[in-house]
Amino acid sequence: MSADALKRLKTVEGHLRGVIRMVEEDAYCIDVIRQIQAVEAALSKVSTQILESHLNSCVITAVQGSDKKERQRVLKEITEVFEMSNKI
Amino acid sequence: MSADALKRLKTVEGHLRGVIRMVEEDAYCIDVIRQIQAVEAALSKVSTQILESHLNSCVITAVQGSDKKERQRVLKEITEVFEMSNKI
Amino acid sequence: MSADALKRLKTVEGHLRGVIRMVEEDAYCIDVIRQIQAVEAALSKVSTQILESHLNSCVITAVQGSDKKERQRVLKEITEVFEMSNKI
Amino acid sequence: MSADALKRLKTVEGHLRGVIRMVEEDAYCIDVIRQIQAVEAALSKVSTQILESHLNSCVITAVQGSDKKERQRVLKEITEVFEMSNKI
Repeated sequence: MSADALKRLKTVEGHLRGVIRMVEEDAYCIDVIRQIQAVEAALSKVSTQILESHLNSCVITAVQGSDKKERQRVLKEITEVFEMSNKI
Repeated sequence: MSADALKRLKTVEGHLRGVIRMVEEDAYCIDVIRQIQAVEAALSKVSTQILESHLNSCVITAVQGSDKKERQRVLKEITEVFEMSNKI
Repeated sequence: MSADALKRLKTVEGHLRGVIRMVEEDAYCIDVIRQIQAVEAALSKVSTQILESHLNSCVITAVQGSDKKERQRVLKEITEVFEMSNKI
Repeated sequence: MSADALKRLKTVEGHLRGVIRMVEEDAYCIDVIRQIQAVEAALSKVSTQILESHLNSCVITAVQGSDKKERQRVLKEITEVFEMSNKI
């Protein structure tokens, strides 16, 4: 995983702490919801980035490898995270 | 793509026609929204199913093939549909 | 509900029929997934539009009315469709 | 906003810190993606909870109030966060 993913996640953590502060300071509900949605959107971007690097490393290795079970496992995981991304 | 995907999409089409009928008959707004959400959930399931069969056919072929550009193209598409699934 | 919602849903129905045709003609999996995602995005837009008109009619009536139970029911429904929209 | 929302957000913050640790320790990409998705799902739940309490306080006050502009503003915001929830 890229150092970039780590950096982005730390930025998201800072954003989330800002949201917590908003709630502590009794900010307007809708503003809080909007910031939570922005945090979620940022997290989705990190997921996409991690998936991209995963496809270009582990997935290529597994699919080109001779272990059929491993290949199936790796491809099944892609389907699963795609399915979950449709549910959140 | 499986005949199953086709069958499911036709079922979704029937469901959507039902929603249109509800609107024509002036059904309660919230009931219409719920049915539209059910149609969307059903569509997501078909997407996941199509992606799964795509991974187990075209993607394996491309990743095991010798054309590096083609491999990159195919993997990039997976990232793109994943990214989009986070936005809908 | 506006005649506009009905018109949009019929457009979506046409779009979905196009997707079914793509599958029948054995189109490329990723192209089908992208079109299904476009149909979902279009459906979300119709939902939002219906919710907007619902808020400006039924919800105002219920919240201004004297029936407390009815008011609670109407507000609970808004929460429920919001919750569901986060899951699809 | 309830103290419960604050508590939940702090729990999510702890969860997110756990994800950051996973990345630092070079955890398996798919496991990281799954945890990010779990964080997103938890955030959506907090949003729903905040919206619910907002509907039962500010929205009732605004809709029952005599300021038509304020009422429209408050209802428009509901539509907006619903629309956004469909995009993340």
